[in-house]
Amino acid sequence: MSATTDTIRNGVDTEKMFATLDLIKEQPAVARFQFRATNRWIDGAHNRSSIQGFYAAGGEDTSRSEAFAIDAGEPAILLGTDTGPNPAEYLLHALAACLTTSIVYVAAARKVQLTSVESTLTGDMDVRGALGVDDEPRNGFERIGVSFRVNGKAPAEKLREVVERATARSAVYDMVTNGVPVAVEVATD
Amino acid sequence: MSATTDTIRNGVDTEKMFATLDLIKEQPAVARFQFRATNRWIDGAHNRSSIQGFYAAGGEDTSRSEAFAIDAGEPAILLGTDTGPNPAEYLLHALAACLTTSIVYVAAARKVQLTSVESTLTGDMDVRGALGVDDEPRNGFERIGVSFRVNGKAPAEKLREVVERATARSAVYDMVTNGVPVAVEVATD
Repeated sequence: MSATTDTIRNGVDTEKMFATLDLIKEQPAVARFQFRATNRWIDGAHNRSSIQGFYAAGGEDTSRSEAFAIDAGEPAILLGTDTGPNPAEYLLHALAACLTTSIVYVAAARKVQLTSVESTLTGDMDVRGALGVDDEPRNGFERIGVSFRVNGKAPAEKLREVVERATARSAVYDMVTNGVPVAVEVATD
Repeated sequence: MSATTDTIRNGVDTEKMFATLDLIKEQPAVARFQFRATNRWIDGAHNRSSIQGFYAAGGEDTSRSEAFAIDAGEPAILLGTDTGPNPAEYLLHALAACLTTSIVYVAAARKVQLTSVESTLTGDMDVRGALGVDDEPRNGFERIGVSFRVNGKAPAEKLREVVERATARSAVYDMVTNGVPVAVEVATD
């Protein structure tokens, strides 16, 4: 096998991964990142975020040649016209994507070759909270269920350890389970 | 003005909105919702969620004729190939979209005609946590900043009250600030 084949595992360049980890250990300041999104209301429940630049490794990252545009909406029952997934569904997607990427990276680091990673997420909500009808139910999901099916060239026990470690290191899992301080500012013309 | 013009405000059908609120007050059971996402790993940091069905108002909602497909990825510095926004950026989008929709709906209910709602969100992270280099920094954002610019045909004070009420009722703001219990299950073939 070529050197390239040896270092790429699960689509992740493990040589670059370990070099990145070594660099961050030596220079912790390069680990400071800031991600961003700008959002603009279009009409009704339709709004769109633009995501492009971010701060990383001591400077502004300009590697993205154009912005990602992502549309949100609501289904008819929640007074929208289905212009995109709704915000709570995007939160489930963020959680699924982060756990999945963490699983793939942890597996790559541990020399586990994966063949498939699939998940189904559910979030249960009493919309009386968010609609302001009742103060008792919380606004958001009462609970989130995540069901993974993971396969690869490793014993089941090893695959489970990969998922466990990935969960313990996932950025979005941490935020969704533990919460994050959010500061909201408002300006009007 | 026609009846239609009177009931549609900010793109929201307020007649339908108030009818929905009345129905939920009378029959709290219809307020039980379950949202879902299924996710599939593609390669490396690239994975895709499919979002379509959900449970609402006492039954399965089948109003969406096809699924939304949304792609996640990572930029090169985080070992991906930019196949989509990254999971933490999607969390910022979810928060922006939910606060914006809440602002639009609250304004509609309060007879405030909006002309623009724009926001910029930032999330600060020390990636040593998520990369497993150091146990000290948390995995997710240490803090999130949300900066709104809201304009409409109402005094600034009224617009600020709308944002305040929307923040107090936003589903994703609640989840991101307070956290949600998440149960993770794993199956292997």
